[in-house]
Amino acid sequence: MPHDGDDTVLKGEDAIIALLAPLAERHSGAFGLKDDCALLAPPPGTELVLKTDPIAEGVHFLEDDAPEDIAWKALAVNVSDIVAKGARPLGYLMALSFPQPPARSWMSRFAEGLRAAQEALACHLMGGDTDRRAGPLTISITMIGAVAAGRMVQRATAKPGDRLFVSGTVGDAALGLLLARDTALAASWKLTPADAEHLLARYRRPSPRLPLAPLLLDHANAAMDVSDGLVKDLERMLRASSASAHLDAACIPLSGPARRIAALSPDWLGRLITAGDDYEVLCAVPPDKIVALASAAAAAGIPLTDIGTVAEKDPATLTVMGPGGGPLALPERTGWDHF
Amino acid sequence: MPHDGDDTVLKGEDAIIALLAPLAERHSGAFGLKDDCALLAPPPGTELVLKTDPIAEGVHFLEDDAPEDIAWKALAVNVSDIVAKGARPLGYLMALSFPQPPARSWMSRFAEGLRAAQEALACHLMGGDTDRRAGPLTISITMIGAVAAGRMVQRATAKPGDRLFVSGTVGDAALGLLLARDTALAASWKLTPADAEHLLARYRRPSPRLPLAPLLLDHANAAMDVSDGLVKDLERMLRASSASAHLDAACIPLSGPARRIAALSPDWLGRLITAGDDYEVLCAVPPDKIVALASAAAAAGIPLTDIGTVAEKDPATLTVMGPGGGPLALPERTGWDHF
Repeated sequence: MPHDGDDTVLKGEDAIIALLAPLAERHSGAFGLKDDCALLAPPPGTELVLKTDPIAEGVHFLEDDAPEDIAWKALAVNVSDIVAKGARPLGYLMALSFPQPPARSWMSRFAEGLRAAQEALACHLMGGDTDRRAGPLTISITMIGAVAAGRMVQRATAKPGDRLFVSGTVGDAALGLLLARDTALAASWKLTPADAEHLLARYRRPSPRLPLAPLLLDHANAAMDVSDGLVKDLERMLRASSASAHLDAACIPLSGPARRIAALSPDWLGRLITAGDDYEVLCAVPPDKIVALASAAAAAGIPLTDIGTVAEKDPATLTVMGPGGGPLALPERTGWDHF
Repeated sequence: MPHDGDDTVLKGEDAIIALLAPLAERHSGAFGLKDDCALLAPPPGTELVLKTDPIAEGVHFLEDDAPEDIAWKALAVNVSDIVAKGARPLGYLMALSFPQPPARSWMSRFAEGLRAAQEALACHLMGGDTDRRAGPLTISITMIGAVAAGRMVQRATAKPGDRLFVSGTVGDAALGLLLARDTALAASWKLTPADAEHLLARYRRPSPRLPLAPLLLDHANAAMDVSDGLVKDLERMLRASSASAHLDAACIPLSGPARRIAALSPDWLGRLITAGDDYEVLCAVPPDKIVALASAAAAAGIPLTDIGTVAEKDPATLTVMGPGGGPLALPERTGWDHF
């Protein structure tokens, strides 16, 4: 975490809480961050959808990333999960662990980024905790969303015959991370400044697909967010659903810059569809609902791409066919696994 | 985190999740830890009370602490907050951050400790996340409890004239931490083995006062758990409630061993009442409810001690009188503050 050298260091948890309290002022159950706990009155007729997904410096963001971007990403990765269940975000708890007391300027910018993110993502800070310990700066957010009772869209409920759709494009964030670490890649990839900016933004500012949530409720048999790589996450959906699928890699949606980079070497396509941090939505849709979903998604301005069909379990595999007609070579450990 | 040298290291998040899944089997909305999110149907007529309080190696537990104890403490510190609000725990999300893949034996023992804790503390694992990053082993639990709608016991609602009560004894855990770091202290403090065991257990295995929750609902104007030291937490309650208090240090409940240690040097009393990790309950009770609360607490086997009276704000201070008649000397930074 970079500190502005000329800035004062915040003294005490209370000084940090004071900068965060405005983020909680629209949730009465946050008690201005002055109680031990937060209170949430669930909206009538709803069930709560809960997710916790911490992000840490060096793993999910880089030391010199802007505080505003770190805050945005911390919130967005959790909203992404909630949205993929057909739920709408309500609020979140946030635990901050600092290796050293933050500078006031860093903390102010972080709070400002969080304010922008929670306005865009329709949720409010409800409570949290702040402590100091060795190790990387870590932001642990627990997001609470609401969904009509009995209607959460699960992962394990894809059915044979369902078509598989993914929102947006995959692989951009992985390219953005590589670029953030080594800006010289922009030249070797022949990127325009706008291309490079697009890929970096996809890494730093994922945009959960909020308007997709109600459409998933109405049209999808199963859904999940794509955060550990399309291949790995689709394998999880298939395993949970006891099903198989056969994809044509050429049908997997890539952005313009990603497509041009993929053309540079045959390895790239496999890397892009197994890389993490996409925060797009993967869903399984029964054939009789495809037209309605496609039309509603188009009206909402959300690109959805048909990438394949769910098959019976036997054989219980995911096969990805490459441009040459045979199975695509994938990196040995597909998808992001921390271990 | 110690690893048994002869043990296999767990490969992959799925192997860790497999060891934790039995902890979630009694919560249908955990989906066997096979979905992205957890689902919670709030009990009718309730509101939800939420708390997140991560614990980290080197701060809240020591490297060679038993995995069972670490798990217990991670859960107990969060249940403690919920109980002090008059709520009952329902379930929790847990994010584990490992600096290196855990050994199977460590993870099995951790899961066993968590199983014992969640049985004792009446809650279930609902979901979570596991990742690997540099820095200390960190266990981030978010606890969700339920309370009858409109009845959560707040921190900011103590009234002038209320009597202040604290459950159990304070300072034991701080002594336990000192002992855990330096076992030779047991001899210089002239502790029996049972004394030492008591203090260590208070540090490693805090016992949230679950049966106190319904009594707080019925009898307390305000309550909070004591986790950062009695003085600091009481100051927070008073500040939030715009009130003052005057305590006699001699009335603050200490255990037998703590009382004997306090007699060794005049500094000890101030240290014990400003030290963290007590996980007892502090509450403010209107005079007409004291008898009913005392009798119900006695019936439930919970020691409650009257430590003082809430006064009008002016002067807005907490004064602690020492044994000599004047204000007690307190350590300069009272209570645990991470910054």
